[in-house]
This record gives sequence, C-alpha cells and structure tokens, in this order.
Amino acid sequence: MSEFELHQTLAADTVEVTRFELCHVLLSKDSRYPWLILVPARADMRDMHDLDPADQAVLMTEIDRASRALLGLHAPDKINVAALGNMVPQLHIHVVARFHSDDAWPGPIWGAHPPRPYAAEALEKTLASVRKALS
Amino acid sequence: MSEFELHQTLAADTVEVTRFELCHVLLSKDSRYPWLILVPARADMRDMHDLDPADQAVLMTEIDRASRALLGLHAPDKINVAALGNMVPQLHIHVVARFHSDDAWPGPIWGAHPPRPYAAEALEKTLASVRKALS
Repeated sequence: MSEFELHQTLAADTVEVTRFELCHVLLSKDSRYPWLILVPARADMRDMHDLDPADQAVLMTEIDRASRALLGLHAPDKINVAALGNMVPQLHIHVVARFHSDDAWPGPIWGAHPPRPYAAEALEKTLASVRKALS
Repeated sequence: MSEFELHQTLAADTVEVTRFELCHVLLSKDSRYPWLILVPARADMRDMHDLDPADQAVLMTEIDRASRALLGLHAPDKINVAALGNMVPQLHIHVVARFHSDDAWPGPIWGAHPPRPYAAEALEKTLASVRKALS
C-alpha cells in the first residue's frame, strides 16, 4: 500500500484548516460558500465504501463535527454533505453551508459558478474562525 | 415529536425497495442512473447532524450496504453519496452509481437532465435485482 498524499487538485483548491483523527480538514478557496472538505488520510481510497468499517464510523463523527462548526459560525439554512469525486478521484467529502440566498440555491454548488477567491485578509479571518469553531 | 412520514415528493419520485434497520430504501424512478435513496425513519430530520450519534453510525453502515449492492449489480466507475435536501427538506441520502458514460458525467446528477422513467417491465426487473442484491 502506498503512502497517503493529498491529491494535487485538492491541494491547489483548498487551504489546510486542521487535522482530525482520520481526516485532513480543508477549506475551499471558493468564498461563495462556507465549504469544508474532509480527506481521510488513507492511501488509495476512492469511495466511502473503500474505508474499513472503523474508519467509516470515525468519518461520520468527523462529518458531524465539521457540520456543527459551520452551523455555529454561519447558521445556514442547510448543510450539504457529499462524496462525489467524479473530477478528483481521491476520496473527499464536501461539507457545505447552504443558504436560500446563495449563488447556486437550490441547485448543487459543484460546477454552478466559477470559484470566487477570498481576499487575503478574509481568508485569514475565515481560517481563524473555522479553527476556533473546530477546536 | 411527530411520527415519521415519508415526504410526498420522495414518495412520488421513488419506489420502495426495502426497509433497513434505520432507513427506508427507495429506488429513484429516474432510469438514467442506478440510484438509491435512503431515508432515516425518524421524524423531523433535515440534516445528518440532526440524527443522534447511534443513528449516524447505523446510517453509515446502511450507506455502505446500499453502495455495495450497486457495485455488485453495475460495476460503476464511482459511487456518489450525498445528503443535499435543498429541494426536499426531509433528510435523505442519495447513493448513485456513476459511469464515465452517463448523461451527467462528470457533473452532479441533480438537475442535470429531466428524469427518464423506467418502462414498467424494466422497473420490476430492477427492483427485483436490487432487492436480491440487498438481501
């Protein structure tokens, strides 16, 4: 089995927030949505069913933790949780705070609009608030 | 707390496949994709984090079970797992077999194309094969 290494597309499109027991917690660079991405630090995983049952159980608790952080920070109308991976084959789970007023509502966010980068200061502020909410 | 009742839109857009311990297992009437929908039989749930931890753990095992049934039946290129619920507020989890050749690849399936109904005979055959794969 090879070593886990974050897929280069995920690395390019996100900023690392923190490490959970299982997952790398990443913030999407698209400022349109409060958008975390969890990447289980296991090599050669493509789908959730590739994880063993113990890791699946931990993943569910980490999804819950990421969801609650976004809830506490943003009081969104919905949380979307999705493991799609049609573009990037490495297993990753989107946890996205959605609002009736957001750019893609009620459709899915993926591919709906080009990413809108954070200003540098806003990114630092967002990272700090997410890290605090997750700690 | 009110009694669980399947949301009318989910009832209209799917056919019941079976019951798991936690979830109703539904087949989408859209024949474009092998597409199961899991609905935890708990009242007043909107998001995965609304489930208590024990139910979340069971849900993960049921997602795994539904995924493996689709894998065994269709040998897809990917399984997409998603709790979106922007259209239908009742918590439901999509488990979809995806192919490089499918109508929406590599985009998300939701809203990509109008549903293409199964012919009556194909629906019965699909239901039978999914029930067998899940049993």
